[in-house]
Amino acid sequence: MKLPDFKDIIDAHQLIKGYIHRTPVMTSRAINQITGCDLFFKCENLQKTGAFKFRGASNAVFSLTQQQAAHGVGTHSSGNHAAALAYAAALKGIKAHIVMPSNSSEIKKKAVAHYGGIITFCDPTLKSRETTLQSIVEKTGVEIIHPYNNVKVIAGQGTAAKELLESILELDLIICSVGGGGLLSGTALSTKSLAPSCKVIAAEPSGADDAYRSFKAGYIIPSQNPKTIADGLLTSLGELNFAIIRQNVDQIITVSEESIIEAMRLIWERMKLIVEPSAAVTLAVILENKEKFLNQRIGIILSGGNVDLKHLPF
Amino acid sequence: MKLPDFKDIIDAHQLIKGYIHRTPVMTSRAINQITGCDLFFKCENLQKTGAFKFRGASNAVFSLTQQQAAHGVGTHSSGNHAAALAYAAALKGIKAHIVMPSNSSEIKKKAVAHYGGIITFCDPTLKSRETTLQSIVEKTGVEIIHPYNNVKVIAGQGTAAKELLESILELDLIICSVGGGGLLSGTALSTKSLAPSCKVIAAEPSGADDAYRSFKAGYIIPSQNPKTIADGLLTSLGELNFAIIRQNVDQIITVSEESIIEAMRLIWERMKLIVEPSAAVTLAVILENKEKFLNQRIGIILSGGNVDLKHLPF
Repeated sequence: MKLPDFKDIIDAHQLIKGYIHRTPVMTSRAINQITGCDLFFKCENLQKTGAFKFRGASNAVFSLTQQQAAHGVGTHSSGNHAAALAYAAALKGIKAHIVMPSNSSEIKKKAVAHYGGIITFCDPTLKSRETTLQSIVEKTGVEIIHPYNNVKVIAGQGTAAKELLESILELDLIICSVGGGGLLSGTALSTKSLAPSCKVIAAEPSGADDAYRSFKAGYIIPSQNPKTIADGLLTSLGELNFAIIRQNVDQIITVSEESIIEAMRLIWERMKLIVEPSAAVTLAVILENKEKFLNQRIGIILSGGNVDLKHLPF
Repeated sequence: MKLPDFKDIIDAHQLIKGYIHRTPVMTSRAINQITGCDLFFKCENLQKTGAFKFRGASNAVFSLTQQQAAHGVGTHSSGNHAAALAYAAALKGIKAHIVMPSNSSEIKKKAVAHYGGIITFCDPTLKSRETTLQSIVEKTGVEIIHPYNNVKVIAGQGTAAKELLESILELDLIICSVGGGGLLSGTALSTKSLAPSCKVIAAEPSGADDAYRSFKAGYIIPSQNPKTIADGLLTSLGELNFAIIRQNVDQIITVSEESIIEAMRLIWERMKLIVEPSAAVTLAVILENKEKFLNQRIGIILSGGNVDLKHLPF
């Protein structure tokens, strides 16, 4: 399958920019003091549907031919891709069938329903998710939109780093979190085109370090029994994503759960921004490696802000 | 004493604008849908020190003559004014003596100490606050900066609405919360000068409705045993503030604690912004009076975002 390139990201941006927020880039004197570097936070927690996922989902949905879109779209997801796809489909006026594990959080279920997604619940296993979605495809003919292993989705996610690099010049590096690799692969493509000397570092919980191990090994090692509070980062890398990551990412750094929670609290308390643990993993990398990053200008992509206020880690 | 006017607000803005954030104005499709109006949120929770208070404190401190500033500044405050004054004084390179009730929240004590304020604890009564501050004045000769009953403070607070009205045109009304009346009086002055047809409505918890009752009575009725989660709105109106409010505010509306918490949750969940209860009182007014505000373009001043994450109401 053809890998996406920066041209696809430019096209994606053109297609979706009337529908997405150009999210603000925020700074914090207090967190700069604590870390000893200049941080520029790209606030995708303020993106529509509360996460960067809407960029990729909308690019994928808006790119469908009339024939492809005729029976709607479908996916399995317990998280932010589900809500993003439901909203993108609603904007295009087509149906979105979302297979969700029965143990998905109430807030995520509510969000999908709010955007008009048609939810089918399944058992909380990958097998059940896949077979349930497959049976919907056979019944309805929906077009499957994979949450990350999809050229259009990757191109859409890359628009966040494109905006960041258009606003903030001379960054030494960009840090973004890695789960399936959609955001990371898109970020890497934009960065290597717009700012070739800017490094791309991925942040991953050590309790879900399949990307770190895959990157070292040179082949995809699937995620097995991952355990982390960063619930958006439990998935295994996609093939397209991994191919791009191998070529364009400089390093993957893992962090502890304690650092993720500390980073999340810092962003909440000092920036007054609600971010989810999967977003805070980025700042956790800096907190655990202050010497390494001292005095650098660092772009940080805050991937999302969908948390259940009834279950906070502090 | 001379009341401040819009000219004072223009001067204040000139003096402080290199030090304050020009905070963003945010919108939320979801909350617009729920309320049936077009809301424009002026995010003073993202202001330095986490609240609009830094505008007034910095204007007051930067306006001092060398002689007035010689021995530093002082105030009694359990809240956001304390941190704002400490930070403004630090920027000017002078001392800030802050009298705080011993039962002030840990997070507020930490903030004042963080900005270099010299804290003296007192009993949690107005009398103890005043006598403790007075003894500091006698010992050190500090200049007292009142949190709201002060011309320079009022002028500084007015710059928030000035920025909002410069960015967003044709507002039907502006809603802001009222405690001592610093923010409300400044907001009213800016609004009546920049957008004379725009109404100014104050939001107050019904458990601390002294401004509502004072406005009706035509004279200041001090706050007695107020009880509300909106801890920034417990104080009684200042005389300067009340004089301006009587002339320039259209209405004061009280709301229940339940509505304040519901509004706060909506802003957290839908906008991913951390606001304190005293800020959410504004949206609560709309939630309780949807018919009245239907289809209007409304500016909302989110006054601050300093909350203790260990004690959330949800």
